[in-house]
Amino acid sequence: MKLLQVDTVARAREKLKKAVQGQGVKRRRVPLEEALGGILAEDVYAKEPVPGFDRSTVDGYAVRSADTAGASDSVPVFLRITGEIEMGRVPEHGICPGECMYIPTGGMIPEGADAVVMIEYCELFSETETAVCHSVPAGGNIVHAGDDVQEGEKVLTKGTRLRPQEIGLLAAVGEESVTIVKPWSVTIIATGDELITPGDRMEPGKVRNINNYGLEAIARQMGFDVSGCFLLKDERGLLEETVRSAMRQSDIVAVSGGSSKGKKDETASVIGTLASEGILTQGLALKPGKPTILGYDVPTGTILLGLPGHPSAAMIVFQLLIGWLWEDISGGKKSWPVPAELTVNVPAAPGRAVCQTVQLLRGEDGRTKAVPVFGRSGLISILTKADGYIVIPENQEGLKKGEMVEVFLI
Amino acid sequence: MKLLQVDTVARAREKLKKAVQGQGVKRRRVPLEEALGGILAEDVYAKEPVPGFDRSTVDGYAVRSADTAGASDSVPVFLRITGEIEMGRVPEHGICPGECMYIPTGGMIPEGADAVVMIEYCELFSETETAVCHSVPAGGNIVHAGDDVQEGEKVLTKGTRLRPQEIGLLAAVGEESVTIVKPWSVTIIATGDELITPGDRMEPGKVRNINNYGLEAIARQMGFDVSGCFLLKDERGLLEETVRSAMRQSDIVAVSGGSSKGKKDETASVIGTLASEGILTQGLALKPGKPTILGYDVPTGTILLGLPGHPSAAMIVFQLLIGWLWEDISGGKKSWPVPAELTVNVPAAPGRAVCQTVQLLRGEDGRTKAVPVFGRSGLISILTKADGYIVIPENQEGLKKGEMVEVFLI
Repeated sequence: MKLLQVDTVARAREKLKKAVQGQGVKRRRVPLEEALGGILAEDVYAKEPVPGFDRSTVDGYAVRSADTAGASDSVPVFLRITGEIEMGRVPEHGICPGECMYIPTGGMIPEGADAVVMIEYCELFSETETAVCHSVPAGGNIVHAGDDVQEGEKVLTKGTRLRPQEIGLLAAVGEESVTIVKPWSVTIIATGDELITPGDRMEPGKVRNINNYGLEAIARQMGFDVSGCFLLKDERGLLEETVRSAMRQSDIVAVSGGSSKGKKDETASVIGTLASEGILTQGLALKPGKPTILGYDVPTGTILLGLPGHPSAAMIVFQLLIGWLWEDISGGKKSWPVPAELTVNVPAAPGRAVCQTVQLLRGEDGRTKAVPVFGRSGLISILTKADGYIVIPENQEGLKKGEMVEVFLI
Repeated sequence: MKLLQVDTVARAREKLKKAVQGQGVKRRRVPLEEALGGILAEDVYAKEPVPGFDRSTVDGYAVRSADTAGASDSVPVFLRITGEIEMGRVPEHGICPGECMYIPTGGMIPEGADAVVMIEYCELFSETETAVCHSVPAGGNIVHAGDDVQEGEKVLTKGTRLRPQEIGLLAAVGEESVTIVKPWSVTIIATGDELITPGDRMEPGKVRNINNYGLEAIARQMGFDVSGCFLLKDERGLLEETVRSAMRQSDIVAVSGGSSKGKKDETASVIGTLASEGILTQGLALKPGKPTILGYDVPTGTILLGLPGHPSAAMIVFQLLIGWLWEDISGGKKSWPVPAELTVNVPAAPGRAVCQTVQLLRGEDGRTKAVPVFGRSGLISILTKADGYIVIPENQEGLKKGEMVEVFLI
């Protein structure tokens, strides 16, 4: 029998990262409409400035600011209107001293003008003359070419997760597609003679397959492609064949169940057989999540993951290892934890980390409180009552009521 | 000319909410695999208990706890092994005093047994006899039927946003599909003679259409269906026809641009014409976001929304009004803001609220800091530098350095 190599979460992450290092990330070019949530695979430089030309920020008259010096309600300045600027068009001519042109918000500043007087400060005398009752400094009410983005400027950095505003910025600099890190493709496998799917008729001794549904959802939430979901009987040959075939088309094969010490445990043996690097980690110093197995196969570039059968533990381990690795190697911005005050003591045994689910509440003092949701790790309902989790490191004996903690939202 | 009805954000929300009240929400039944991110349209009650039967939480021997009383390493108790329990099967028989059966983790407790002794505390004497070196209390190492979820229990509440764990719980109670609030369908329209799409060749005086891309992404992020995106020249007839036709198939028609006071402004007039309730709000007491128009049409049940042409303002207003309304009427859980300490004073003029974008940083003191990202509202690059925003209410003159604020992540 193989020695159990129980690793801390940090050590398991390190091994995983080292294993996939040679692999690098794959890229995919996608149209802007499909880029939301993607991770930029390269820096983006602006091919053009934004705005592309000097624009008015108000409706009014484009003027030479010097012409308006000293203008006031009692002593207005009279300017000759020589035309009107149309949106999206280059002005037909420039303006000379004593002249002005009507300009709408966003219109192009004509040559000779260096400011815009708001229409509220003008009084039309005739079709060709307006009184200006307010002075405007040079540059007033103008946004200059390149004020937002300069040509050639780096606008987005490799590793940025594309939110709606980044999509907008890409549109602004004239990109209609973008290169993102190709999302991982995941195969999810549940094993167990006792498992039936949600639609099956319940029979004594049977248990619903929860993990395939929970893990598929978590993988999709991370932006991965789920290439297959399988529910298998506890048969070594069947499991090995399914994993082997999945390795050809997936970056990750996650097997849940079959990794406790029960005698039908075949997952470790299958991972040990199929992963060129053998088993990296067998057992995680984490509660919940101990029966976790990690392997990596270099030829196919596949992470092989044996997850606990308990649904909550399986989901948390997938998040802590695969979610972390994806953020790390894609360079995607880390999730921002919510700081909160712990409402009760949380015990922990030294030697293994504890992942404690919590509810967030607003306290009467206006502070954010983290209320632990206690329960057995196997209970899926616990996770649905939680807003997030905190991790108590393995070198800590527990946390005290009133301590500040960082809550990772789930 | 119509009087401008400048509303606070709160007042505009109230009007919107009142307008859509009669409408109610539509429902959609979706398979579990497509339910992620959906909002539950009804409470879910468990049709079956979880677990469905008393299960062992360890590998070991199912026993009568009384038989193990006083057992220790020095004085073990000898029990007769009468069989083995298989996963997913009902035990072939029960156990009598002095007997035990092998049971794997998750196996069904046989009749007569009330506890499980971990295999680590047993020493096999022969194929039919084991020494037990540890006593176990009644209920020890057993999870009982219904411990996680009881039959008939309300497991999820209407309005819950379905995360991976909720999907898992639905699988656990045997649901293969679920009724969610039908996501809104949105048509997005940008108007402006100056607008060209990101792929077009840039020409003097032209500006990239940013809003269609940013708004489509934000709508998708909220889970909405985007039924169409249009880029129109500034022509009233064209706009009216496009909005009218979109109203037949969309819950929301959002028009950006054309709502400043420029003389080509037709959006307000079109909304006024097409909305049976007329214009609800024309002008929002919000910076940025003033040129916002709201209307509602009862016969088609459509919200008509005129958004500022400035991309940042358009996206923020969409989030503050439509995002808020969706959370409110679907009952979906509100987003959890991140509490942070403001690093500098932020000025604000009383009479209108200010939506200030901020970056989040971890201070040297370990506290979360909100660093305002200043810039003109029209600049899209500002939004990409921000992690979230804070809202300074219209009755406040500004915020002081060091004040705690709530940051809504974007």
